Amino acid sequence: MMLYDRNRILVESIRRLLRRKAMSHLKKIVNKTHAADLAFVFPSLTFPDQRILFNFIEDIETKAAIFSYLSEDDSRAFIDEMSLEEVVSILEHMPTDDVADLIGILPQETADAILNKMKIEGSQEVQDLLRYEDDTAGGIMTPDFIVFRENITAAEAIASLQKEHVDVEMPFYLYIVDDSDRLVGVSSLRQLVVVPSETPLKDFMTTQVISVRTDTDQEEVAKIVARYDILAVPVVDEFNQLVGIVTVDDVIDIIREEATEDILRMAGAGEEFVETQTVLRSIRIRLPWLLASCFGGIVAFFIIGKFEASLNKFAYLAAFIPVIMGMGGNIGTQSSTIVVRGLATGRIATRNFWSIIMKELMIGLILGLFYGLLVGAVAEMRFFSILLAISVSLAVLSSMSVAAFVGALVPLVFAKAKIDPAVATGPFVTTAIDIISVYCYFAIATTLLEL
Amino acid sequence: MMLYDRNRILVESIRRLLRRKAMSHLKKIVNKTHAADLAFVFPSLTFPDQRILFNFIEDIETKAAIFSYLSEDDSRAFIDEMSLEEVVSILEHMPTDDVADLIGILPQETADAILNKMKIEGSQEVQDLLRYEDDTAGGIMTPDFIVFRENITAAEAIASLQKEHVDVEMPFYLYIVDDSDRLVGVSSLRQLVVVPSETPLKDFMTTQVISVRTDTDQEEVAKIVARYDILAVPVVDEFNQLVGIVTVDDVIDIIREEATEDILRMAGAGEEFVETQTVLRSIRIRLPWLLASCFGGIVAFFIIGKFEASLNKFAYLAAFIPVIMGMGGNIGTQSSTIVVRGLATGRIATRNFWSIIMKELMIGLILGLFYGLLVGAVAEMRFFSILLAISVSLAVLSSMSVAAFVGALVPLVFAKAKIDPAVATGPFVTTAIDIISVYCYFAIATTLLEL
Repeated sequence: MMLYDRNRILVESIRRLLRRKAMSHLKKIVNKTHAADLAFVFPSLTFPDQRILFNFIEDIETKAAIFSYLSEDDSRAFIDEMSLEEVVSILEHMPTDDVADLIGILPQETADAILNKMKIEGSQEVQDLLRYEDDTAGGIMTPDFIVFRENITAAEAIASLQKEHVDVEMPFYLYIVDDSDRLVGVSSLRQLVVVPSETPLKDFMTTQVISVRTDTDQEEVAKIVARYDILAVPVVDEFNQLVGIVTVDDVIDIIREEATEDILRMAGAGEEFVETQTVLRSIRIRLPWLLASCFGGIVAFFIIGKFEASLNKFAYLAAFIPVIMGMGGNIGTQSSTIVVRGLATGRIATRNFWSIIMKELMIGLILGLFYGLLVGAVAEMRFFSILLAISVSLAVLSSMSVAAFVGALVPLVFAKAKIDPAVATGPFVTTAIDIISVYCYFAIATTLLEL
Repeated sequence: MMLYDRNRILVESIRRLLRRKAMSHLKKIVNKTHAADLAFVFPSLTFPDQRILFNFIEDIETKAAIFSYLSEDDSRAFIDEMSLEEVVSILEHMPTDDVADLIGILPQETADAILNKMKIEGSQEVQDLLRYEDDTAGGIMTPDFIVFRENITAAEAIASLQKEHVDVEMPFYLYIVDDSDRLVGVSSLRQLVVVPSETPLKDFMTTQVISVRTDTDQEEVAKIVARYDILAVPVVDEFNQLVGIVTVDDVIDIIREEATEDILRMAGAGEEFVETQTVLRSIRIRLPWLLASCFGGIVAFFIIGKFEASLNKFAYLAAFIPVIMGMGGNIGTQSSTIVVRGLATGRIATRNFWSIIMKELMIGLILGLFYGLLVGAVAEMRFFSILLAISVSLAVLSSMSVAAFVGALVPLVFAKAKIDPAVATGPFVTTAIDIISVYCYFAIATTLLEL
């Protein structure tokens, strides 16, 4: 059964049971459903219903897992309703990085009260994490990992694992530090099991450790984890002391976030997801991008003004403006999207500059020829003027080929200049294409028709 | 140092050494660089230079890793140049899923020759994998994993790990099957180490195993791994027999691929990355999407035709078409992008249908008011006609608010109808907005100006 259907069925069953007040049934369902699934259906329920379900959960680990999955707004609503003791007991079962994220969005007063009430060790870890910027390795790392000194033996490490390390998120890698807590190696549970038990860790650990710094950008962290196919990357401070790890599940979230950012940037709709933001904030984000396109439109207005005399002679000329602008705009969007995404994923490299641009120009010429003939045929059928038909065809052809060319050129130029192509491409390409399309059209038509 | 800089420096050093024919230096660099980094610089080098570097690699594991990372075209070029023995020896050190992907793109003859030469077991595994569709769990899984029968003890499992299982990709989860190879549980290396050594696996394994079927779509597999924060998901056949696992590093690649697909679909540029495809294939993919926009332009043409008489009286009216269409088109793209991506990431749910649409409409009205006044002011400054200024302002206002409304409405309607909003939204929104913008403008202007 697909995840989508499983979610839908779960939501429907829970709603039905809530309506029927079938509390014992609900309790059973809640306690046998995976925390991730439960968290996913929560947003579909009213807050009082969420409260009912949450109170039915018997296992504190599940409660903690749900808190890790909930949106910031939802978890804040829960915290407002719960006693401080309950909040703290749940937080103490959550991964430290999730606790820090949650504490970070609470009012200072509530945050302080919670931190004061938490066990000293956990509270200190949370406060340490709060020092780092949100979108750096420090901001996303967890301080819970398995670490050993380099001189202990495999057997001692296993014995220690059997006693402690219950709460680590990634119990697969073993990080190895020297006497000053500096990261010197990495090994795995698997190696621990395989080597003779008296071997000291430093004899079989890998010393070429891929690590990041606390201030490494999260996008860079994601790239590193993806590049080297590792399940977690250790995070070190300026003294190369091991302070945390970033696990692959957080990397998946980052990759999704970054894709969303790129998509929104290309559409000129900001970078953070604006739908969940207020109307005013959305407007502030979206207004500037529209300014570029408004500027392009006003320039096009003045260009058309130059051809006022021709328009007075043959007003119907104006009727082709939408199709010529539309075709140029759309093929330009195709080209720039392909290049922007190609650069982001590494499928396109700026060193192939000219071959990419020439290919797009070629595609623009062929598609422009096709649609030029099509729109020209419409013009001919309507006006029986072969010269008008040719003008319109040529205008579509030039608009589409220039648009494909510009659409590929602009992001490549930005990439070469080390400016994020996703941010800059949208407004530049749209504005340029609007202006060029209109100019080409009127220049060609007035010349051919001798208007 | 950023990955980007590290890559650049590596490429530059290697190129310099190649120019200087400093072979012993090159050999040193090649053998101390991570295979992932080497593979990343390979596409920046000419094929003969790639051959030189590749031959310098001493470790067959590194050669195999590079093959796993190389693009299909590059690895095919290498295979063409190498002896069959060399190819087979490298392939035998690669993960079976990567071997199957590679074999799948080779000419039948070469593929058969390689499979015949491979060790029987490996060759059989590869052929088994080739049976599955590329974008299903079967097509991306690896048949190398750790599996035990449910009755053996922890100590026996550890002893067995010390002898075999050298080649598994995810040596963290232990999968547990019954006597008919049916998946019955999962455990971890960590639990194996922690439990008393005489405990049989079935006493501590987790029996609620999240698994997928061989025919599960890869996007669904990625969602499951991401949802449950697991490092690998077991793949079972129709008899619930364990046949493979999909690991989280493959899931990362899928998530990237799917984001690319969504971005390209929204821009009407196909779903597979077209830049690497031939001009003709690109055209075939991009042509149909442009058809919708061409149709919209032609409808706009006929609408303007209806207002020919007004245009004959005041030709300059046409000069505002670009700015009105452009502003409508751009805000419509913002709204539809936000909704499409919001639906894809789960930030927006179709059950909030009306609140989302109303919010977008509100944003469209406010931004429309702002830009309407701006464009109206330009009209006033140029023509000193307050009625024209009002007409243009109203046209911008109505075009932008309708565009925001339609841009939000269309993807939500498609999502409710279970049609992928990313595919359908682009052409519909653009076409509708072109037509509506032009109509509103002329209807308002001719009424107010009594043309």
